[in-house]
Amino acid sequence: MNAIDKLVALLSKLPGIGKKSAGRMAYHMLDSDPSYANTLAEQIASLHTRIKRCSLCGSFTESDPCPICTDPGRDPALICVVERAQDVRVIEESREFRGRFHVLGGLIAPLEGIGPDDLTIGQLISRIRREGTREVILAMNPTVEGDTTALYLQKMLKETGAEVTRLASGLPVGGDLEYADRLTLSRSFRGRVKM
Amino acid sequence: MNAIDKLVALLSKLPGIGKKSAGRMAYHMLDSDPSYANTLAEQIASLHTRIKRCSLCGSFTESDPCPICTDPGRDPALICVVERAQDVRVIEESREFRGRFHVLGGLIAPLEGIGPDDLTIGQLISRIRREGTREVILAMNPTVEGDTTALYLQKMLKETGAEVTRLASGLPVGGDLEYADRLTLSRSFRGRVKM
Repeated sequence: MNAIDKLVALLSKLPGIGKKSAGRMAYHMLDSDPSYANTLAEQIASLHTRIKRCSLCGSFTESDPCPICTDPGRDPALICVVERAQDVRVIEESREFRGRFHVLGGLIAPLEGIGPDDLTIGQLISRIRREGTREVILAMNPTVEGDTTALYLQKMLKETGAEVTRLASGLPVGGDLEYADRLTLSRSFRGRVKM
Repeated sequence: MNAIDKLVALLSKLPGIGKKSAGRMAYHMLDSDPSYANTLAEQIASLHTRIKRCSLCGSFTESDPCPICTDPGRDPALICVVERAQDVRVIEESREFRGRFHVLGGLIAPLEGIGPDDLTIGQLISRIRREGTREVILAMNPTVEGDTTALYLQKMLKETGAEVTRLASGLPVGGDLEYADRLTLSRSFRGRVKM
């Protein structure tokens, strides 16, 4: 296999990247100035040494604890629980949340052999007790696994005394009733708010 | 800017990759085994040193002349003229063509300041004379620039005595070689018309 084919094979393993996209990416690297490919290669090579997990919240960070956990301007009594570290990025970009995070490291999925003990639930509970958390916002996706995990967490966190809430689920803003699936519609009815 | 943001910014420069895809790619690299990121980084870093232009046809290759130009099983009297080096890959994958290639390095586009002298037309003509080419198949995209370039080439190549044909417009007008499926490509090869 030649160098281009090897690169295309590697790039095709990335999420959402098929063989054609990978090919286009590889040729773009070849057509561009070599400095682009070199900088990109360096960034990818140094990724795992520069980025660690925050020992407090579990999100990806260059400094431990992460800038979010150490930011005095953020509400320390508010914890947003997410499935994966990349969810922190998505929520941060929305600028809708000014508390701290907790990365579960997955969702309960018995069929895939992922049980509660595989997640950072124990750490979350001791963190809530230690930090005197006022509210825990569950931000897992509204899927079967997300719902199961949220339900389990709700039970487990009851004893901590913290209020447990979950992100509203319903019609996406700008969306169309016509394209909403039945479950989403059903949830938006059940979660309807007074105007 | 932290390491992830830097990587996302670099990946976003790739064709067809937006900020969200770039983010997903970066987190995939972080979530995967470090060996994947390292191998990928090595491939990207060595790309420009390992891949050169073939001095005969202008396509990307690890050895010069490229394996296509030196393959005795391919018809040396048949030259397929393409716009860019990546078009060679697309045509090779269709397995519809068993001659050799010539990469123009672009298309005539007066508005972008690209004239005939910016392309490898001189090399093509001397190659045809030297190699006694029987037929030149023009395989540029069926776009305004592609048509202009094909017309120009047809005139320029007349004196060489080689037959000049062009891929049939089985390719959807306004489209791109890269997105053609194998059957469409195959039809456009078989239905190529004399110019």
